[in-house]
Amino acid sequence: MAPQFSKTDETAINTIRTLAIDAVAKANSGHPGAPMGLAPVAHVLWNYYMNFTSSNPEWINRDRFILSNGHACMLHYSLLHLFGYDITIDDLKNFRQLNSKTPGHPEAETPGIEVTTGPLGQGVSNAVGFAIAQAHLGATYNKPGYDIINNYTYCIFGDGCMMEGVASEAMSLAGHLQLGNLITFYDDNHISIDGDTNVAFTEDVSQRLEAYGWEVIWVKDGNNDLAGMAAAIEQAKKSKDKPTCIRLTTIIGYGSLQQGTHGVHGSPLKPDDIKQFKEKVGFNPEETFAVPKETTDLYAKTIDRGANAEKEWNELFAKYGKEYPKEHSEIIRRFKRELPEGWEKALPTYTPADNAVASRKLSEIVLTKIHEVLPELVGGSADLTGSNLTRWKDAVDFQPPVTHLGDYSGRYIRYGVREHGMGAIMNGMNAYGGIIPYGGTFLNFVSYAAGAVRLSALSGHHVIWVATHDSIGLGEDGPTHQPIETVAWLRATPNLSVWRPADGNETSAAYYKAITNYHTPSVLSLTRQNLPQLEGSSIEKASKGGYQLISEDKGDIYLVSTGSEVAICVAAAKLLKEKKGITAGVISLPDWFTFEQQSLEYRKSVFPDGIPMLSVEVYSDFGWSRYSHQQFGLDRFGASAPFQQVYDAFEFNAEGVAKRAEATINYYKGQTVKSPIQRAF
Amino acid sequence: MAPQFSKTDETAINTIRTLAIDAVAKANSGHPGAPMGLAPVAHVLWNYYMNFTSSNPEWINRDRFILSNGHACMLHYSLLHLFGYDITIDDLKNFRQLNSKTPGHPEAETPGIEVTTGPLGQGVSNAVGFAIAQAHLGATYNKPGYDIINNYTYCIFGDGCMMEGVASEAMSLAGHLQLGNLITFYDDNHISIDGDTNVAFTEDVSQRLEAYGWEVIWVKDGNNDLAGMAAAIEQAKKSKDKPTCIRLTTIIGYGSLQQGTHGVHGSPLKPDDIKQFKEKVGFNPEETFAVPKETTDLYAKTIDRGANAEKEWNELFAKYGKEYPKEHSEIIRRFKRELPEGWEKALPTYTPADNAVASRKLSEIVLTKIHEVLPELVGGSADLTGSNLTRWKDAVDFQPPVTHLGDYSGRYIRYGVREHGMGAIMNGMNAYGGIIPYGGTFLNFVSYAAGAVRLSALSGHHVIWVATHDSIGLGEDGPTHQPIETVAWLRATPNLSVWRPADGNETSAAYYKAITNYHTPSVLSLTRQNLPQLEGSSIEKASKGGYQLISEDKGDIYLVSTGSEVAICVAAAKLLKEKKGITAGVISLPDWFTFEQQSLEYRKSVFPDGIPMLSVEVYSDFGWSRYSHQQFGLDRFGASAPFQQVYDAFEFNAEGVAKRAEATINYYKGQTVKSPIQRAF
Ligand SMILES: [Ca+2]
Ligand SMILES: [Ca+2]
Repeated sequence: MAPQFSKTDETAINTIRTLAIDAVAKANSGHPGAPMGLAPVAHVLWNYYMNFTSSNPEWINRDRFILSNGHACMLHYSLLHLFGYDITIDDLKNFRQLNSKTPGHPEAETPGIEVTTGPLGQGVSNAVGFAIAQAHLGATYNKPGYDIINNYTYCIFGDGCMMEGVASEAMSLAGHLQLGNLITFYDDNHISIDGDTNVAFTEDVSQRLEAYGWEVIWVKDGNNDLAGMAAAIEQAKKSKDKPTCIRLTTIIGYGSLQQGTHGVHGSPLKPDDIKQFKEKVGFNPEETFAVPKETTDLYAKTIDRGANAEKEWNELFAKYGKEYPKEHSEIIRRFKRELPEGWEKALPTYTPADNAVASRKLSEIVLTKIHEVLPELVGGSADLTGSNLTRWKDAVDFQPPVTHLGDYSGRYIRYGVREHGMGAIMNGMNAYGGIIPYGGTFLNFVSYAAGAVRLSALSGHHVIWVATHDSIGLGEDGPTHQPIETVAWLRATPNLSVWRPADGNETSAAYYKAITNYHTPSVLSLTRQNLPQLEGSSIEKASKGGYQLISEDKGDIYLVSTGSEVAICVAAAKLLKEKKGITAGVISLPDWFTFEQQSLEYRKSVFPDGIPMLSVEVYSDFGWSRYSHQQFGLDRFGASAPFQQVYDAFEFNAEGVAKRAEATINYYKGQTVKSPIQRAF
Repeated sequence: MAPQFSKTDETAINTIRTLAIDAVAKANSGHPGAPMGLAPVAHVLWNYYMNFTSSNPEWINRDRFILSNGHACMLHYSLLHLFGYDITIDDLKNFRQLNSKTPGHPEAETPGIEVTTGPLGQGVSNAVGFAIAQAHLGATYNKPGYDIINNYTYCIFGDGCMMEGVASEAMSLAGHLQLGNLITFYDDNHISIDGDTNVAFTEDVSQRLEAYGWEVIWVKDGNNDLAGMAAAIEQAKKSKDKPTCIRLTTIIGYGSLQQGTHGVHGSPLKPDDIKQFKEKVGFNPEETFAVPKETTDLYAKTIDRGANAEKEWNELFAKYGKEYPKEHSEIIRRFKRELPEGWEKALPTYTPADNAVASRKLSEIVLTKIHEVLPELVGGSADLTGSNLTRWKDAVDFQPPVTHLGDYSGRYIRYGVREHGMGAIMNGMNAYGGIIPYGGTFLNFVSYAAGAVRLSALSGHHVIWVATHDSIGLGEDGPTHQPIETVAWLRATPNLSVWRPADGNETSAAYYKAITNYHTPSVLSLTRQNLPQLEGSSIEKASKGGYQLISEDKGDIYLVSTGSEVAICVAAAKLLKEKKGITAGVISLPDWFTFEQQSLEYRKSVFPDGIPMLSVEVYSDFGWSRYSHQQFGLDRFGASAPFQQVYDAFEFNAEGVAKRAEATINYYKGQTVKSPIQRAF
């Protein structure tokens, strides 16, 4: 039944607005315009439609709310405070201050914030991931009479999000996937930082979204037409085969003297403007951070409604648990982000007698094994399935059932050529809960998704990139496809695991750590070309991130390497011994991030004092002086030719490494060499 | 007049197809399907419509042709050979071999290739840049009776390009800008690597492009309807206020036994398939790389037509030169990529008596000065003009005149929130010739454009990124906006200049080098916060990429730093002297790329032996062990708070640096310290 709106609603809306105005003014920094323009729809949605329990922000079946135009976060913080989340008036007063719960853009650490947003286009793309997660888990676990997982995902986004390519990718896929429980609001306020959107953004957004297969409902007075907003939300909830965009034409900073201009976008309202606004809406201009009792009373009812909704759901879920105990405990386990006991026994191990295999293929073998014991693993590829080898045999595709190409319980997603969209969607799926997503592309094109990868690391999303064709070893496709700088960029990113396994055991170790690192995303850098199974590798050793594959602490040199170059170093060590009588050890360092979490004692045992070390990796050697005294890498882009020819052209073979090892030994002869990991602080 | 098509056209089309088939088969690697499907439209376009001179691929007013689905490059190589460019049959036989002119994706080094493509979505976005350049230079230099610059930009793209966000960004802007001379062909073949596009890509592409403001013409039989293609091109050439997409529904690998399937996309045709194809189209199945005489004869006429077109244009241009000598010589100068004599005198210089100024503001001062002497400088921002300070006062916006917001002679582009699109468009503008583009965004969001930045470096595009708000110093916007890993990524990229100027003189040096490096893109990392003018800085010294700001070769330590941290190091040196009697020198290293081009002797003079060095930079310290013995950086993401509080929280102040300098000195006490730049090879 449609709500009847009254003066009380107006007051509530103006409470949201004045909290945002006061917080931005106190911080003397922030964005008041969008919260003022969006307060009406936020009020309608939160007070009348959204299912949530502020006393339990982790309730599994809550509706999700994502603010994609994250700079408008004072809107969200105001709502969280007013609806009883653990955000106090003091927290609002600490807006944008060090270590506050109310930073300059929404961060998922704050209770009630589903996902960190701010970089434009990410939030709405995350929302697509949330909606996929809901559709998938619903299709997997719901039973007749038990609609356990059926929440809606709500998202507000602005012109900026709509201009970003990542949103285009994700929204096109959302249309294809017919995500009926995704309901978004487009803040069509015609203002961006450069002023009127007429200077750069004159496309027909409704038509574009319809082209993607979306339902678009236009509320032409997004400032006042509360009934129109309510009707739009009700229609959107009913339509089950399309994502919905409710286009709200709003005036930014509605009520400010500067409303409708860029002047109200990114800086505090002036004192006289605040005064006139508060007077106009019946608030005391002398008071700041005021919450009228009628707002508190109104929202108290909503808080109760949410608590009741959760209670009813808990009862239903308990009943479900009696009928479907296995599914019940699996849902609980997945949302607790716990792994099934003993899952890691499914990881394959290898001996040197086993065949040489490309690490992309080794990855496929792991996925084929572990998908059976890890139902939370949901894979996909950005249109490179046959190259990334990301799809286990007989996987069901995640597709709308009407397409007859799969169904929503399917665990394999066809992302299309949309790397950035895939990254943001994976982040969203993981943030929803119950899912560990992995996605494939060429390592070189992980860069296309840099915006999403960075947010993944910042937020600690548990996602895995299966990044194949990881070097000049991909051969003929040439320098446009051969990563050189990519791994340096990834290694420089905080809280990101970057695995470059050298063989089968190391590939299993990479997955072991990627799956058990709950709060760290992982990128697996995998070869197109075959790699031999190494003597001395093991899951246990590689799981430390680095180890001595061939120990020679009293030898002449250590070769430090990763991935496909480790076997080359082993061959070089053999050559050096045979031809020159030189003793070389080999250190394999498949993941720096994991290695740096080991004890100093362990790390020193891997990188001892007194022996020169040469790093060998077919990438930019940028960063390698942290783990070696001398570096062998590439300082240029690659070349198009068959794999072995490219490697030989750049002397990445046993002879080339041996030659450089000798030069390094000669250079350090007679000098006392300290371990490269020794530090003053 | 519309061409009449005959058997000769069929033969020519099949010549293109068989060359592609034979080259891929010989290389045993490559993509035959798209060339086979696209041969008809390529033939119609090149033989009947496109203006080009194969004997002079650099003719200023040639029509440009860009293959955005670069994996189809054998189509392009075949055309180049057949139409008389410097590509021989032997070059085609060397397809995808080391150092050939015919690498696995088109590279601009090959005569007739306008721009390196392959990573999907880039080429069509480059094409938007080409069309902007043409519109801008035409509006700037054309005179009544002298349509000197009026070429068309043609571009073929595929489903993959259309799925990529970068294309979405660029194409939306192209619609806004009403680029009438941009004519693209969408290879609507319903196949991508994962198979039928139905699995991921079911949007209505025509409707989407129309929403962007494009004209869409659909040729439903892209395999055979040559007259339809011709008519579409003619209509597209006439429409002057919209970019055009000619949607060609084609069958991939048309004529192969596997036509219409993914099987013909990325691997050679089987021998029996080649045989049946050649027989079917009347070619000798025993022959490879055959070019029938009737094809040679047909295309010879076109080659002549092109030569004549250039000749006529040369005459017109010579006449123009008499009437408009200044413009004439300016056009020649700009297309020769030469700078006007003495332009660098416009660069401002500073003394320590001058005010502290944010380097984004210093950048604005430079742009305000040099835009007057460098008409080739065409700027813009991805919707952050007021923050990036990229627009000189009274700049005219590049806009369709009907908008009354500017005109096509305008030199300031409003890119909208489209960083990746901006990057690819800048690459295209520079590749067109006559333009040095610069574009602004926050440093953190240069990552959104990583795909374009990489191609810029690989291709040596002369473009400049004005990347402001370059560290945690941006303050309140918080960790989602504060770059940590970004500069490491950029520094690890070959052929990329990454400037982090410390004051006014260094900012001028950064621009001096960015403008004079014709074949290297530059990223300028600039502050939001104020920086003092340093004692000892100069344009000359900074132009070497690194220098001793405070020389103390006999001192206790060197502090090595960049940008906003240099002044902090100077303060720390003062503090160390006053409080501890410690002598510290300071090395400023604003651009590693430029520094690494200096002589070894010079570099050793900057980084002498015998003194420990501590690097200080508020980024990930990844890579800094190349230039220091000990590093002070960040190993985590930033925080939302006012600037000085964030710096203090991470101890990036004089006290924090001094403390770490002392620790470093103590650690190295009694040891012989070598310069960090010393190398074994
Ligand atoms: Ca719906
Ligand atoms: Ca046109």
